[in-house]
Amino acid sequence: MGICSFTQKIIPPDINMKKSICYHSIVCCIFYLLVGCSDDAANRNDLTQTDPLPSWNEGKTKSAIIDFVDRATDPEHQDFIAIEDRIATFDNDGNLWSEQPMYFQLLFTIDRVKAMAGQHPEWKEEQPFKAVLEDDIPTLLSLEHKDLFKLLMATHAGITTTAFNQEVKKWMKFSKHPRFNQPYTELVYQPMLELMQFLRSKDFQVFIVSGGGVDFMRAWVTDVYGIPSYQVVGSSMASKFEESQGRVVINKVAKIDFIDDKEGKPVGIHKFIGKRPVFASGNSDGDLQMMQYTAAGEGSRFMLYLHHTDGKREWAYDRNSSIGKLDKGLDEAKKHNWTVIDMAKDWRVIYPFEQ
Amino acid sequence: MGICSFTQKIIPPDINMKKSICYHSIVCCIFYLLVGCSDDAANRNDLTQTDPLPSWNEGKTKSAIIDFVDRATDPEHQDFIAIEDRIATFDNDGNLWSEQPMYFQLLFTIDRVKAMAGQHPEWKEEQPFKAVLEDDIPTLLSLEHKDLFKLLMATHAGITTTAFNQEVKKWMKFSKHPRFNQPYTELVYQPMLELMQFLRSKDFQVFIVSGGGVDFMRAWVTDVYGIPSYQVVGSSMASKFEESQGRVVINKVAKIDFIDDKEGKPVGIHKFIGKRPVFASGNSDGDLQMMQYTAAGEGSRFMLYLHHTDGKREWAYDRNSSIGKLDKGLDEAKKHNWTVIDMAKDWRVIYPFEQ
Repeated sequence: MGICSFTQKIIPPDINMKKSICYHSIVCCIFYLLVGCSDDAANRNDLTQTDPLPSWNEGKTKSAIIDFVDRATDPEHQDFIAIEDRIATFDNDGNLWSEQPMYFQLLFTIDRVKAMAGQHPEWKEEQPFKAVLEDDIPTLLSLEHKDLFKLLMATHAGITTTAFNQEVKKWMKFSKHPRFNQPYTELVYQPMLELMQFLRSKDFQVFIVSGGGVDFMRAWVTDVYGIPSYQVVGSSMASKFEESQGRVVINKVAKIDFIDDKEGKPVGIHKFIGKRPVFASGNSDGDLQMMQYTAAGEGSRFMLYLHHTDGKREWAYDRNSSIGKLDKGLDEAKKHNWTVIDMAKDWRVIYPFEQ
Repeated sequence: MGICSFTQKIIPPDINMKKSICYHSIVCCIFYLLVGCSDDAANRNDLTQTDPLPSWNEGKTKSAIIDFVDRATDPEHQDFIAIEDRIATFDNDGNLWSEQPMYFQLLFTIDRVKAMAGQHPEWKEEQPFKAVLEDDIPTLLSLEHKDLFKLLMATHAGITTTAFNQEVKKWMKFSKHPRFNQPYTELVYQPMLELMQFLRSKDFQVFIVSGGGVDFMRAWVTDVYGIPSYQVVGSSMASKFEESQGRVVINKVAKIDFIDDKEGKPVGIHKFIGKRPVFASGNSDGDLQMMQYTAAGEGSRFMLYLHHTDGKREWAYDRNSSIGKLDKGLDEAKKHNWTVIDMAKDWRVIYPFEQ
């Protein structure tokens, strides 16, 4: 506890505000004459000394990020960015949390198919449901888009948005990741949590812009990332306002409304955020157009690619992966001198539970 | 200037922060012993005494609003609302600014048709363009949706989002309202500006949820209402990410993407905000479903209808108006005891320029 906090404590509570503030000042000054005053100042100094990215190893990646933020927030610098323009967009799968052995939303979908199978005996013989019920992983990993949509429609529609939100929350609470035996919400990247917090502390507005389902993400991202529901951009099903048993509800309809991937990402950014980002962070070719859109703006901007290089602590994959393929993106990053995180080299810690 | 602000000014600028804070305290205390210290405390007292809604006449409408906010922000009260749930949604046309003699976006559209007519000689003989070019107001006011869409498509598409934004800004700067000879951005309701500011000061997140075009609104709402682009929900055209002359751009496409009106409003709220509001404000039957959706949530909530009753200072219209028709909404408000603003009675001032 600092001196001035202490003086606040020793002031009688029944004293009025105006008086108390001045008692506070007086006691504070007496302390100053004796031992040096003002924990406020002390705190300020602490802040400037604190490492905003403790889970990042020192090196050019960490320096590039901190340097960009320093320039963007220095009113004297030519790279200064006005607070209202400090829009930062982050992909989610494979960028803020892991996406192996398959997208976590697909694992949720699989569990939901199994839970719903009782009311759908026909699924035993019908693909892609058959593959799900028989844990036929090779088939699941090779599913085409139309089959994935079939699974999504069966499990993400015909339910109110409120009920779906509760289903996701329940799954997040009780399911565990096969490799780490941890809740999926523990498989978030500690360095990225720190990066988002660092940006927020510098008046950046942090958004998720993900190919994942927006209703799926909104059920947990606020608790896990500190991002409010209205700063989450994602893929969505159509929804319909209806009256049911005398109550108005919004039902999820078995129809794709928006795919927030590739060219869809800048479109989604314009549609939901309405401003071009100055900072974009992603890990796959699905994020390339978001990077290009961010890079094409005027003034200072920062494009950040995460390269999965750590086969020991996480997973190593890029150009030939069926999940989170990073091929063109790597070439473009090199060509335009965008910053690339080498996970194995740049991250001291990957998951919060390692600490 | 308060005493402590004054002491800050008289402290040599070159002095370091830790020292300055204590000099500040010392000088502050000396002043206290002489004349009584702490403008901080004074300001606090002022704040509690300040009327947050000075342009609202005293009465049950103003009291109902302040009472709701007091209860929602009192942790001891059963009607307390957690900060993350303090979502307030406001319709725009006829609710935050005027909508007569026709929607201002339609007036923008008309001016744009005239400006573009040179490249479209065929418009001279083609409705609805003919009516626009001949200032045939009766025809314009009786236009069907498909004709309005024709005008919108011709004037709001085939242009980049950036260029469109500049066109709207230019129009807002140079156009004036026919009746008041003021820029359209001056025809905002002073009492609503105060209400939005009051809610923000109590940690509510204020959103626009309007049938108007989101790209049209985002060009000016931040300057005029203090609402960031990502807290504006509106109707939208489709848009496409494209490369043009080596630069990536987003082009507005002649196709309706979303209509944020009637049943579309709760759908838009779910889609863009992802949370059910606790406070909803509107002025027409187009806002009714937003009110119903807000009212259907659990806990304390506030539904506010604006009734245009002031034919002298603004316009008087409701059940039989072709613009901003308020018929079912009035009945529902009465039935469910929602708060209805009587503009003539409840508002001391309507427009900022009256002051």
